[in-house]
Amino acid sequence: MPTQKGRVLLAYSGGLDTSCILAWLIEEGYEVYAFMADVGQEEDFAAAEKKALKVGAKKFFLEDLKREFVTELIYPAVQVNAIYENVYLLGTSLARPVIARGMIAVAEREGCDFVSHGCTGKGNDQVRFELAFYGLKPDIKVIAPWRIPEFYNRFAGRQALLSYADQQGIPVAQTAAKPWSTDENLFHISYEAGILEDPNVTPPTDMWKLTTAPEDAPTTPERIAIEFKAGLPVRVVVPADAKEYTDGVEIFTALNALGRKHGIGRIDIVENRFIGVKSRGCYESPGATILRIAHVDLEGLTLDRNVRALRDQFTTIEFSRILYNGHFFTPEREFITSSIPTSQRTVNGIVKLKLYKGNVVVEGRESSEGLYDEHESSMDELGGFEPTDTTGFIQIESIRIKKWAEANIRKGQSGVAPKDVYGSRV
Amino acid sequence: MPTQKGRVLLAYSGGLDTSCILAWLIEEGYEVYAFMADVGQEEDFAAAEKKALKVGAKKFFLEDLKREFVTELIYPAVQVNAIYENVYLLGTSLARPVIARGMIAVAEREGCDFVSHGCTGKGNDQVRFELAFYGLKPDIKVIAPWRIPEFYNRFAGRQALLSYADQQGIPVAQTAAKPWSTDENLFHISYEAGILEDPNVTPPTDMWKLTTAPEDAPTTPERIAIEFKAGLPVRVVVPADAKEYTDGVEIFTALNALGRKHGIGRIDIVENRFIGVKSRGCYESPGATILRIAHVDLEGLTLDRNVRALRDQFTTIEFSRILYNGHFFTPEREFITSSIPTSQRTVNGIVKLKLYKGNVVVEGRESSEGLYDEHESSMDELGGFEPTDTTGFIQIESIRIKKWAEANIRKGQSGVAPKDVYGSRV
Amino acid sequence: MPTQKGRVLLAYSGGLDTSCILAWLIEEGYEVYAFMADVGQEEDFAAAEKKALKVGAKKFFLEDLKREFVTELIYPAVQVNAIYENVYLLGTSLARPVIARGMIAVAEREGCDFVSHGCTGKGNDQVRFELAFYGLKPDIKVIAPWRIPEFYNRFAGRQALLSYADQQGIPVAQTAAKPWSTDENLFHISYEAGILEDPNVTPPTDMWKLTTAPEDAPTTPERIAIEFKAGLPVRVVVPADAKEYTDGVEIFTALNALGRKHGIGRIDIVENRFIGVKSRGCYESPGATILRIAHVDLEGLTLDRNVRALRDQFTTIEFSRILYNGHFFTPEREFITSSIPTSQRTVNGIVKLKLYKGNVVVEGRESSEGLYDEHESSMDELGGFEPTDTTGFIQIESIRIKKWAEANIRKGQSGVAPKDVYGSRV
Amino acid sequence: MPTQKGRVLLAYSGGLDTSCILAWLIEEGYEVYAFMADVGQEEDFAAAEKKALKVGAKKFFLEDLKREFVTELIYPAVQVNAIYENVYLLGTSLARPVIARGMIAVAEREGCDFVSHGCTGKGNDQVRFELAFYGLKPDIKVIAPWRIPEFYNRFAGRQALLSYADQQGIPVAQTAAKPWSTDENLFHISYEAGILEDPNVTPPTDMWKLTTAPEDAPTTPERIAIEFKAGLPVRVVVPADAKEYTDGVEIFTALNALGRKHGIGRIDIVENRFIGVKSRGCYESPGATILRIAHVDLEGLTLDRNVRALRDQFTTIEFSRILYNGHFFTPEREFITSSIPTSQRTVNGIVKLKLYKGNVVVEGRESSEGLYDEHESSMDELGGFEPTDTTGFIQIESIRIKKWAEANIRKGQSGVAPKDVYGSRV
Repeated sequence: MPTQKGRVLLAYSGGLDTSCILAWLIEEGYEVYAFMADVGQEEDFAAAEKKALKVGAKKFFLEDLKREFVTELIYPAVQVNAIYENVYLLGTSLARPVIARGMIAVAEREGCDFVSHGCTGKGNDQVRFELAFYGLKPDIKVIAPWRIPEFYNRFAGRQALLSYADQQGIPVAQTAAKPWSTDENLFHISYEAGILEDPNVTPPTDMWKLTTAPEDAPTTPERIAIEFKAGLPVRVVVPADAKEYTDGVEIFTALNALGRKHGIGRIDIVENRFIGVKSRGCYESPGATILRIAHVDLEGLTLDRNVRALRDQFTTIEFSRILYNGHFFTPEREFITSSIPTSQRTVNGIVKLKLYKGNVVVEGRESSEGLYDEHESSMDELGGFEPTDTTGFIQIESIRIKKWAEANIRKGQSGVAPKDVYGSRV
Repeated sequence: MPTQKGRVLLAYSGGLDTSCILAWLIEEGYEVYAFMADVGQEEDFAAAEKKALKVGAKKFFLEDLKREFVTELIYPAVQVNAIYENVYLLGTSLARPVIARGMIAVAEREGCDFVSHGCTGKGNDQVRFELAFYGLKPDIKVIAPWRIPEFYNRFAGRQALLSYADQQGIPVAQTAAKPWSTDENLFHISYEAGILEDPNVTPPTDMWKLTTAPEDAPTTPERIAIEFKAGLPVRVVVPADAKEYTDGVEIFTALNALGRKHGIGRIDIVENRFIGVKSRGCYESPGATILRIAHVDLEGLTLDRNVRALRDQFTTIEFSRILYNGHFFTPEREFITSSIPTSQRTVNGIVKLKLYKGNVVVEGRESSEGLYDEHESSMDELGGFEPTDTTGFIQIESIRIKKWAEANIRKGQSGVAPKDVYGSRV
Repeated sequence: MPTQKGRVLLAYSGGLDTSCILAWLIEEGYEVYAFMADVGQEEDFAAAEKKALKVGAKKFFLEDLKREFVTELIYPAVQVNAIYENVYLLGTSLARPVIARGMIAVAEREGCDFVSHGCTGKGNDQVRFELAFYGLKPDIKVIAPWRIPEFYNRFAGRQALLSYADQQGIPVAQTAAKPWSTDENLFHISYEAGILEDPNVTPPTDMWKLTTAPEDAPTTPERIAIEFKAGLPVRVVVPADAKEYTDGVEIFTALNALGRKHGIGRIDIVENRFIGVKSRGCYESPGATILRIAHVDLEGLTLDRNVRALRDQFTTIEFSRILYNGHFFTPEREFITSSIPTSQRTVNGIVKLKLYKGNVVVEGRESSEGLYDEHESSMDELGGFEPTDTTGFIQIESIRIKKWAEANIRKGQSGVAPKDVYGSRV
Repeated sequence: MPTQKGRVLLAYSGGLDTSCILAWLIEEGYEVYAFMADVGQEEDFAAAEKKALKVGAKKFFLEDLKREFVTELIYPAVQVNAIYENVYLLGTSLARPVIARGMIAVAEREGCDFVSHGCTGKGNDQVRFELAFYGLKPDIKVIAPWRIPEFYNRFAGRQALLSYADQQGIPVAQTAAKPWSTDENLFHISYEAGILEDPNVTPPTDMWKLTTAPEDAPTTPERIAIEFKAGLPVRVVVPADAKEYTDGVEIFTALNALGRKHGIGRIDIVENRFIGVKSRGCYESPGATILRIAHVDLEGLTLDRNVRALRDQFTTIEFSRILYNGHFFTPEREFITSSIPTSQRTVNGIVKLKLYKGNVVVEGRESSEGLYDEHESSMDELGGFEPTDTTGFIQIESIRIKKWAEANIRKGQSGVAPKDVYGSRV
């Protein structure tokens, strides 16, 4: 009897790997339910369902998680300007928590003892999925075939998978496999592995899927405006199309279309995976790139200096690290996000942008918050405070610096003497 | 006798303000020496010298500080990827320490009791200059006319300065004053004040001086390569010109020319001045922008993950803040910079770049450091470590997370339940 | 007519300085209302009121702020383990916001245009008071006599004040002034200035007021227990007295009495004032010291490791700096405190303490939170996870370290070779 | 032939566990060399050597690592005031790197292919040893028997070890095993496991080995003085013994003796192990406790405020975490320690201490660095700067706070209104 070992909910993609895993799990004596999450990727879900059931899944579940992906994950990330290692906008990392939560909800509802996935044993996603599973349901059992010797030794190499698919009657796409792997969702697409593993290889121009190349983008700039309330985008105005968007998901979709058209949001980096291995990844995040630039800019106008400095040094960095490392369902993530709303209380206003061939150019911004005061900051007029106050400020600021300089001079270490490359006394 | 009050070394620009200050200081009874620093700005130094002496300066000193500007200030900034409030590359901030040190060196050598400058009472530069003066020579006396009521009340408005110039025989440029003010050096040019004080006004296209507009930049991309040793650029290869640059200053100059040509490095922000006032500034940093992107990229390949994380969160942020706030000649700057060389020991390699209409696109990178290992990071093969090790890693990583999840479940706070916008339990 | 300049609310202490300021303000043409805050200091408020009215105050206001001091200021400080420069528990800093808010509330209610205080021009308290005033009522006008040349030049030295008091009929205490100044409240007492300004002078034994000297404390230890809920003390059990305390203010008072009896909470430091001057201060914080030790200990049992690490490095340090520098009524304080409740959700349990001659010894702690698991942490049994998992964990943790070590060895920089004092390769 | 599997260097303690491991390794076919490090623990090394050879070790190596332990590990820890989770002074963590380096040096010299240790599979020490091994010699092979199922299943429980010892002719100490385990070195002793695993159990009074109980310590206080140069202790004066110590190791030994006598340096905590398990530990660090208090105090007098703040928030915390987690031979440790010398340049002076029944009381400190200025900090006289400067300072500091307060008032969110427990607007 095939279900003797229990019921498994498998994160199914419709591709070769997870189809073989599905068949193998059945062969191993599990009853398998297949799970797919719609997080905005371009996918033929009906075909995937058909295939899963054909391979032997007892049930198939498709969960539409787009809205919670946008509102619970993407928008806090926008509010904190999340970024990993200065460059990566965390598109894959942000989707994992909602997918994992969707899976656990189905697993609990459908009485599955196990969850399974097709992630490799070297990447971040296995960690992100499994820590999320355990953070939601600590007694869940995880089957990760690519880390089980009987599986990975048997299926070493694509050819072994193809043979097994053939033997199991698993339909295989006739198109040749791309020499890289991808992960796509509403926020972005990632490319890694294959020919990209040589970090000095320039990605082929036909790899990029979500954006036009800047060279092929329109030669005429396009202007748009984004309005934020409490740090969240609430309105996007696109004059060229005579359109306005106000729904959270629609805003994101519209910005993706604009970014795609204007060649915005491609990156190519070598990053550090959580397990300590360096890895090359290419990403396209068109809408997210526009939104991040606009949000960062508006914070210049509307966020207090000290809040911004503390948030940048702490919340932004820790939130990004937590997401990247798959620590979403943890106490530290709760702790970090608990201060986001306070930080965004004043981030209200409108940013004007020009989109042109890969560039997102801020052309102006306005807000009624009043933290910026033209009169006060004007270099051309008095106002706001007395110039003599600044003298006092500088005198007080210099007290400890003078003391230190006096000590240096007493020791014969004049700051005016030649320095090494770092300006240190030599 | 006019020199009764002592000798002043004045930071002279050749413009209306500092010429009037020069005349006013003489009127007030000081002997005035004029000081100019060549930090790479486009300037007619000979004309400025002539004018200073004509207005009444007893001596004129021009110091060429370009090399020390590049090697002592710009290059450490490149090594730490210095940036203020996510956007500003600190071009003005980086020049101030070398100018201030040049002034103090001349003031000491020439027996000046005072130094003076023409900075306004609301900006950052007054603070940067004066804290640097005090950090080098704590007993120096500073005359800041724009913070002295007798001066700023008398010269309120440009017309008062023009009248005084006329009366004192100070030559005034016939060209109309631009409706903004600028500061230029080898690293960048800044624009602020005037019409820019409305943060919603788009800067006029003819304002930008150091870069071609992306719209007007070449329609053909250009490829270059930059080699770094210990995080410092040591070679730039420009195939289109069949040129290579290896001298520190020449490298920077060549990158500036490339950036200018391809419309790279314009920014427009509202930033927070040290004194707590928000201020709108526009900047062009062509070469620095290219260099920063290349350096950040190479660190992906060559810098250990944990060093990078610590350096980003601490050294980069603190170095940038210190520079912005004018705290270069302070113990904290010595402390922060003392760890830079260690952080850059492994940052050796070459980055390939494509420059195109405002975009700096990384197309590949290589290094012989060996921290990246294709075999190990490959998703398509085993290697470097056993997949089963990752199972152990995830199990150990999940210990505390499971404990926390179990506690939540005991309290009836299931993580699978609906959440608020931040994913917090509600 | 004496009130032509407007109405001033003066922070009145009953002492010589503020009595002279009161008289001087009247002399200067102000109408003066006197304000006192009861924040738990030992004080004859009735005598002070009588004196204020005698000197000429039109009205006198005494506000009892003890409860809000404890609940709004002290308890969040307990929750974050607030401490400045490793040693100082911030007793004065914590009282200033409630006093300032009490003053502004009275000033608004009573139509005062000005507030005034007797703080010197060199200390922290002037900054704390005034920034709090401005953060609550940005248009308030502040009169700080010790920073007004007409005042401080006229009253340079205690003798000048005594003469003025004599002339104005201000009663002067017959007891000789102590050779230091103090500030007292429910949380602590501080001593500074006078003979303490030599940092090498040991404070005289009769200076300490709030605690018994450890040498004179009971020779028998006393045991107590403190229960916390969400990081706040909710019950103190004192078996020797057969007493339990559950009210917030009573808990604090009881712990003060215990600390006083057992010689707990004296410190003597040189600290860095906000204005950059170093200053010597001595403090007694008996109850706060006990509470801090107990709370830190319970967090060991009940707080997740990563939350604790992030909170310690960020929230604790920033909260403490914000309080010390008088930035309570600021956006950054709101931002920082917004994450405290989440951090304390699990800090529930009981700590057993032994008090003995200056020592607060933790003798045990318990909690039902369940984050500690004897079975799992036991060195003597298996449980919780497989020992082989740890092998995987260590292997994964070592990936990047091995890569780095291999690179060092290739470069001939063996880690086994002799090192300098910091263990760096030489 | 027994050595077919290769040669192992075993970290040998002389106790039951490592003696059984020694025998088992031989049984498994390894040639075993035994290694002991003298890091100041109280130990009969000669007896241990005899026992190792008797059990079957081919060679025995005893390395005296006390001096490098003090100079390379302990002193940098003193300079940064290293502490883990607010309480633990890292005594075990600090010894591991020198022991691991000593082992790798012997392993390389003696041609050992393997190193082995007797650490359990749940603790920190296995991680610290192994990461150190890999950071020094990435190709070393590690045998950790307590993580090998054949070993830990066979030797589950002390009785199995005793039987094996009996069978193998391993001498067993006749004294009953203590109901906890310990680790001792020059710096401290730790106690964990056994009866201590219940965190609410008060450690028995006879457990503590390195210090007198405060209750039994002398009733007369003792005064000493410690002199520091560049943050390192260079002289300890003990008037009661008419002694002075200037050698690094002797200083530490003398302070240990003083601490032991006066009952100083006991702690009892629940801490978070690197693997995420909470664990209860008790520690005695007599000399280190005295040294830390003195060093922290002297930094108050001699270290610039901003250096101290940055060092505390970053270097202290990261250094401590790195040490605790066994990351000594890593690039991040090199990075962090590279800034220590600069931070300690000015930490020169003498601290006077009173030792009394568990208390270390600072009674004064002096330095010729000159960063403290009595005249300037005096509350009783003018000096150093003008009081009016402080007015300017406060006005400038208040600019952004006033702007924020004005915005709050415009929104009807007065700061004077009632607040919740955290002082937030409600």
